Amino acid sequence: MRYLLATRYNDYDTKGHVNNAVYLTFFEMARHQLWTDGFGESGDFPFIVAEAQVRFVSPAHIDVPLAIEIVLGEVRTKAWVWRYRVVDAGSDRLIAEGQTVQVMYDYAAGASVPIPDAIRAKLERT
Amino acid sequence: MRYLLATRYNDYDTKGHVNNAVYLTFFEMARHQLWTDGFGESGDFPFIVAEAQVRFVSPAHIDVPLAIEIVLGEVRTKAWVWRYRVVDAGSDRLIAEGQTVQVMYDYAAGASVPIPDAIRAKLERT
Amino acid sequence: MRYLLATRYNDYDTKGHVNNAVYLTFFEMARHQLWTDGFGESGDFPFIVAEAQVRFVSPAHIDVPLAIEIVLGEVRTKAWVWRYRVVDAGSDRLIAEGQTVQVMYDYAAGASVPIPDAIRAKLERT
Amino acid sequence: MRYLLATRYNDYDTKGHVNNAVYLTFFEMARHQLWTDGFGESGDFPFIVAEAQVRFVSPAHIDVPLAIEIVLGEVRTKAWVWRYRVVDAGSDRLIAEGQTVQVMYDYAAGASVPIPDAIRAKLERT
Repeated sequence: MRYLLATRYNDYDTKGHVNNAVYLTFFEMARHQLWTDGFGESGDFPFIVAEAQVRFVSPAHIDVPLAIEIVLGEVRTKAWVWRYRVVDAGSDRLIAEGQTVQVMYDYAAGASVPIPDAIRAKLERT
Repeated sequence: MRYLLATRYNDYDTKGHVNNAVYLTFFEMARHQLWTDGFGESGDFPFIVAEAQVRFVSPAHIDVPLAIEIVLGEVRTKAWVWRYRVVDAGSDRLIAEGQTVQVMYDYAAGASVPIPDAIRAKLERT
Repeated sequence: MRYLLATRYNDYDTKGHVNNAVYLTFFEMARHQLWTDGFGESGDFPFIVAEAQVRFVSPAHIDVPLAIEIVLGEVRTKAWVWRYRVVDAGSDRLIAEGQTVQVMYDYAAGASVPIPDAIRAKLERT
Repeated sequence: MRYLLATRYNDYDTKGHVNNAVYLTFFEMARHQLWTDGFGESGDFPFIVAEAQVRFVSPAHIDVPLAIEIVLGEVRTKAWVWRYRVVDAGSDRLIAEGQTVQVMYDYAAGASVPIPDAIRAKLERT
């Protein structure tokens, strides 16, 4: 899926570029939009993020509209990978790319759990 | 003007509500959208915020879409007021309201300046 | 009470100044330090913020250490006021000042409650 | 080096844990403290972050004081690696670990540059 990214003035730091930590929030925005609008699930996520990686390729200057692509990577019993590309929404110039590993989690029980079949089916339709 | 607010998962704090400080960012998002999309000006604002007030009326729970309204208040020689209402985008329930005072500023000169006529005309069309 | 403020690189925006929304977080940091270190209470606050005001007096440039003062204002049955001054920790130059109104809140019951006597005593010792 | 981490109430999300994106800010806080207090350099960094990785090991609950350790990894001509461990400041329980790659950068010229000898010497004393 590809989404436009609503950036905020305070995402940009003293250099006039999006601050590096904000990219993990961008990844979270893509997960959130996929999970709620795409899957019809609640935005109070039933999974934890176990790992995150970002490669910063070119700076995101203020006034340049951004988009993000999210695609499914490997799916295991309890965990799955999402990969992301942040691009200039106009020119498709690559700005950053990365991935996160999610683990399905039962917050009431305080334990990881297998991915339910219904969620697995939604993940694989991404 | 009225805009949909793209909230982020980490806007919500341990209570499941939008954190109080985020409302000043919501106000900034409305200013930014008005200034860029509405006025056709650069998002690197040529003004400073001199005062801000927020009244928190009811909590903004996760998964509730939000909208923001921005209207012009008093306009003086160098400064103007914007007023804001954050509402539940579905029911129009009032969530927070407030205002900010902006002062036109020449960052190169390091001094406040009169509002240029072209900006004043755009402000008054809001 | 007066506390040193641990600022973060991404508190500063494209102008090289602390972004306006961050001041409400600075106020929250002062409340948090007073509530936990000063009062010995949990950082998961049992109150809501009902109103906030900030007056931005002079910019906070990067590399300038900041301090914050928090003092008690009016105390009512269920609510109280805290006032804040953010200053240059070296020169005491005033950078911003403001206040917040807090209402004691029972999150389990979903209702405001009178300030318990033990909390009132701690507030008044501030 | 090891530093105490001044967390903020709004670092914690709806689960009561530090939000995943905040760890890149924690890494930045460690870099900033090392660069300014440790090296005596300006907090307006003369480098860019090219890559970041985080592994989230156990959750950081509210009211648990955190510390961060930063150590130098590989140093190349223009780039170097810092590794980080975020721990419970009391028990030393590992909460998250990761690394970032920095590239020395001349913002005026808009180009990467070799690490100056004076900076290299400070890096290697870490």
